[in-house]
Amino acid sequence: MRTSKYLVSTLKETPNDAEVVSHQLMLRAGMIRKLASGLYTWLPTGLRVLRKVENIVREEMDNAGSVETLMPVVQPSDLWEETGRWEKFGPELLRIKDRNQRSFVLGPTHEEVITDMIRNEVKSYKQLPLNLYQIQTKFRDEVRPRFGVMRSREFIMKDAYSFHLDQDSLDETYAEMHQAYCNVFNRMGLDFRPVLADTGSIGGSASHEFHVLAESGEDLIAFSTESDFAANIEKAEAIAPTTELAAPTQEMTLVDTPNAKTIAELVEQFELPIEKTVKTLFVKASEESEFEIIALIIRGDHELNEIKAEKLPQVAEPLEMAGEEEIRAAIGAGPGSLGPVGLKLPFIVDRSVAVMSDFGAGANVDGQHYFGINWGRDVELAQVEDLRNVVEGDPSPCGKGVIQLKRGIEVGHIFQLGNNYSKSMNATVLDANGKSAIVEMGCYGIGCTRVVAAAIEQNHDQNGIIWPEAIAPFQVAIVPMNMHKSERVKEAAEKLYADLTAQGIEVLFDDRKERPGVMFKDIELIGIPHTVVIGDRSMDNGHFEYKNRRDGEKVPVEMDNIVAHLQGLLK
Amino acid sequence: MRTSKYLVSTLKETPNDAEVVSHQLMLRAGMIRKLASGLYTWLPTGLRVLRKVENIVREEMDNAGSVETLMPVVQPSDLWEETGRWEKFGPELLRIKDRNQRSFVLGPTHEEVITDMIRNEVKSYKQLPLNLYQIQTKFRDEVRPRFGVMRSREFIMKDAYSFHLDQDSLDETYAEMHQAYCNVFNRMGLDFRPVLADTGSIGGSASHEFHVLAESGEDLIAFSTESDFAANIEKAEAIAPTTELAAPTQEMTLVDTPNAKTIAELVEQFELPIEKTVKTLFVKASEESEFEIIALIIRGDHELNEIKAEKLPQVAEPLEMAGEEEIRAAIGAGPGSLGPVGLKLPFIVDRSVAVMSDFGAGANVDGQHYFGINWGRDVELAQVEDLRNVVEGDPSPCGKGVIQLKRGIEVGHIFQLGNNYSKSMNATVLDANGKSAIVEMGCYGIGCTRVVAAAIEQNHDQNGIIWPEAIAPFQVAIVPMNMHKSERVKEAAEKLYADLTAQGIEVLFDDRKERPGVMFKDIELIGIPHTVVIGDRSMDNGHFEYKNRRDGEKVPVEMDNIVAHLQGLLK
Repeated sequence: MRTSKYLVSTLKETPNDAEVVSHQLMLRAGMIRKLASGLYTWLPTGLRVLRKVENIVREEMDNAGSVETLMPVVQPSDLWEETGRWEKFGPELLRIKDRNQRSFVLGPTHEEVITDMIRNEVKSYKQLPLNLYQIQTKFRDEVRPRFGVMRSREFIMKDAYSFHLDQDSLDETYAEMHQAYCNVFNRMGLDFRPVLADTGSIGGSASHEFHVLAESGEDLIAFSTESDFAANIEKAEAIAPTTELAAPTQEMTLVDTPNAKTIAELVEQFELPIEKTVKTLFVKASEESEFEIIALIIRGDHELNEIKAEKLPQVAEPLEMAGEEEIRAAIGAGPGSLGPVGLKLPFIVDRSVAVMSDFGAGANVDGQHYFGINWGRDVELAQVEDLRNVVEGDPSPCGKGVIQLKRGIEVGHIFQLGNNYSKSMNATVLDANGKSAIVEMGCYGIGCTRVVAAAIEQNHDQNGIIWPEAIAPFQVAIVPMNMHKSERVKEAAEKLYADLTAQGIEVLFDDRKERPGVMFKDIELIGIPHTVVIGDRSMDNGHFEYKNRRDGEKVPVEMDNIVAHLQGLLK
Repeated sequence: MRTSKYLVSTLKETPNDAEVVSHQLMLRAGMIRKLASGLYTWLPTGLRVLRKVENIVREEMDNAGSVETLMPVVQPSDLWEETGRWEKFGPELLRIKDRNQRSFVLGPTHEEVITDMIRNEVKSYKQLPLNLYQIQTKFRDEVRPRFGVMRSREFIMKDAYSFHLDQDSLDETYAEMHQAYCNVFNRMGLDFRPVLADTGSIGGSASHEFHVLAESGEDLIAFSTESDFAANIEKAEAIAPTTELAAPTQEMTLVDTPNAKTIAELVEQFELPIEKTVKTLFVKASEESEFEIIALIIRGDHELNEIKAEKLPQVAEPLEMAGEEEIRAAIGAGPGSLGPVGLKLPFIVDRSVAVMSDFGAGANVDGQHYFGINWGRDVELAQVEDLRNVVEGDPSPCGKGVIQLKRGIEVGHIFQLGNNYSKSMNATVLDANGKSAIVEMGCYGIGCTRVVAAAIEQNHDQNGIIWPEAIAPFQVAIVPMNMHKSERVKEAAEKLYADLTAQGIEVLFDDRKERPGVMFKDIELIGIPHTVVIGDRSMDNGHFEYKNRRDGEKVPVEMDNIVAHLQGLLK
């Protein structure tokens, strides 16, 4: 590709409205442009990367026996009514009406459409298992689209759906998809981890997310220092401490704490170790409880894991924190002075709290705390659960090593759906005995557009993007110095361009009338892995200069040897 | 691909609601399924064809120097307001609102979005010419979606847009696109014609449609028998007859014709040659006329060309026929008795009518006609225009040969837009003198999903589809006879499948437990060009049977030679 016939569209300045580095660099490198909130045009450079991502995904899905199909973007509402998601899905589901006032949605996902197709087309267990995928535009009307294509409204996903007669078959395909996803992200040259994920409100028996590790990631991943264990922090179990409950050494005392509204203030003003404090949080109770709200107690230095809390039968789903007025009406005191001693409402304590002794907590009277609380003696320990996020240093739930935390960007998700959709939509086949059986389903997604942004978060420096070879927009850049003045440089550049192109190598040939500095900056910003600089000075010595984007290495390469040199690097 | 892991989904019966053969065969061959009116899921077999179409288009666009990009499906309304199309476009433009009640459209085309992008990104004439394309999902809320993917609401188009400093540059790219389109349809193995097309209300200086010839086509194409001339009948000029106006031989007489309401009845009851009759049609006049309606007069055996009529300054655009009441109020007579003699309103006559003598026409009195009318003597000949569709045998407007008509399906359209969009959206560049210049634009579309249907209309027989090699879903089918009983057949089939696949040949291996007859029918219906039948009987003679889908030829091929034989055919 010649830059003169191409839309380079690089920007010198970082646009104001781009918060994360991938968004900044995608704008600066001329990969995307915003059309409206959460809607992006993919400029040529961006699309070249996106297509490479799609093609790697396509090849690995094909290799794994998944069959490509294509479902409409626009879906009729009646299918969504069948599964109940027409009601349940929030305003992210963009509902539209056609000219005849019939209701449709812009598909954020395609479980309904594919399950409808399968119930019509598949009649016998002999046609199963079947694994179908598509690479298609999706739409989610996000309340706050941001970070460019990382969280856009219109995006491209690969979504696959598998159908099975039984759980064993689903397990087998699930394992194949797990492997295919590893192949996909390995081929892309990304540092990623498959991590255990929460199966959420849908239930389902297994779920893994695939995260590209990057400091800017929105998700926290818990790893074991000594095994392959990896789980989203939402899902990672904080195992029960093995330490025994220590015997009391202090009397329980009521202390005036008028200026200690937070744990931090309490710790500072009373020289209490934070591990000797607890946070008492009130959440809405579920319908099965006789109370309106219920208390969750975690150690002062820990964080509530909302996913874990939400799964408790006594807790309303989705999780909702109680308001101050509601708490005050029930307890007689407000946040900052709450605790288990004398509490008239039920409470659940975290595993780490259950082994605390001589600890401090609010007295359920404004401006007062109890210090030296001990379970059993001062207050009965009732229900103990895993309520908190793991922290670094926690023993790993796998039994080996301790927890280490890293940030990740979720780019893929595989999920055993079971019969959640097939049951409500009555997708059945005849089994070997001629009996009707509801099919089991799995679903498998990769956010193709998001992968592009995630790859940049992981691969960049202060000068721009550093593409992994497999998804680089071009493999090689040719930068001729003063080509428009030196006939010799022009000839050499044109010849190299022709030679490399003939070898099937994707080349960006910068034939613009620009100063060398401008060209170098653009090529670095765009992040092309290999650059050949052609100039009169090095040609005097029979050389071109080769530059590597990732390590910055510059070496002279004999002119006659340059094609072979690049071929060796691209192998 | 093994049928056991694939979704074959063929149908024995022709679905009731499919009118045209391509729609019937696409359903029966398991290529598409209807999700809702005008919305289709592409099943694996259909998508394989569609992807081949897209890839051929992509390669030829790349070869022609067009650069791929990707614009959102969802477009903000404000761009459409800038060009005035938010108002002008009919209900085919699906207007939607997001969660914040902002207006968007589902893009039926992308002139607005790309022009907006260009005005932001391109500042200098040095960046021009630039030619960008995308292959993207489009939506048109058709009033009557029909014929399957031939006229669906959601469809996939390749749309390209080129930008230029001047007309010469536009002409050059236009010619390149014309050639690229010929390459595309030639590579697909389709019998097609580029034809002159009307430039419509947008104006613009040149336009060609690309039609796949097929008897079921909705468009009529006029060809010269002796040159390359081809034009959509909408556009084909009916040149002025060279015959001189003959001198009168009859007196004009008023005749009672109470039972002759139509030309056919007049011809039959009065033994009048149809070439001696005229049709007088009233249409709404344009605002520049002082009258409400105006008459257009064509020969009794000719058809009005609405596109030609609409272009006349006196005629309202879009063309609208006058109602009977309106005509009766103005003339005092109704349709069936109208004519030029004594008409109180202006009329325009077709070129063929201007050379008629001794002809009959309505007397503008119900139930009466004049016979023996002659121009000049009985009524003045005023304005003469080309008003009719050409018919077979007309002299070709190219000056060579006569007109021949064929039916075609429009699959592509190239168009010089000039500055229609760039002017209203103020897309300018600085020219070589540093002056601001509005860019010139061209646009170039191919209906990828429609091409698939058009190819079937042209390539089928009573047993199913007959794919041209380049867009066949699979190149070769392997049909083993009783594989599940004969170990020898199974081994041979598995080996051949592995050997062909290793050569990069796309094979559908029918490994289902089905009777041979079922398999043969499916393979013929799906239309795979080459089939290898593997059975014990022919293997006893050291042969496999080769079958060609197009010519039905069956030949025995030595087992050891089968891969080479197929490679030879696929060359």
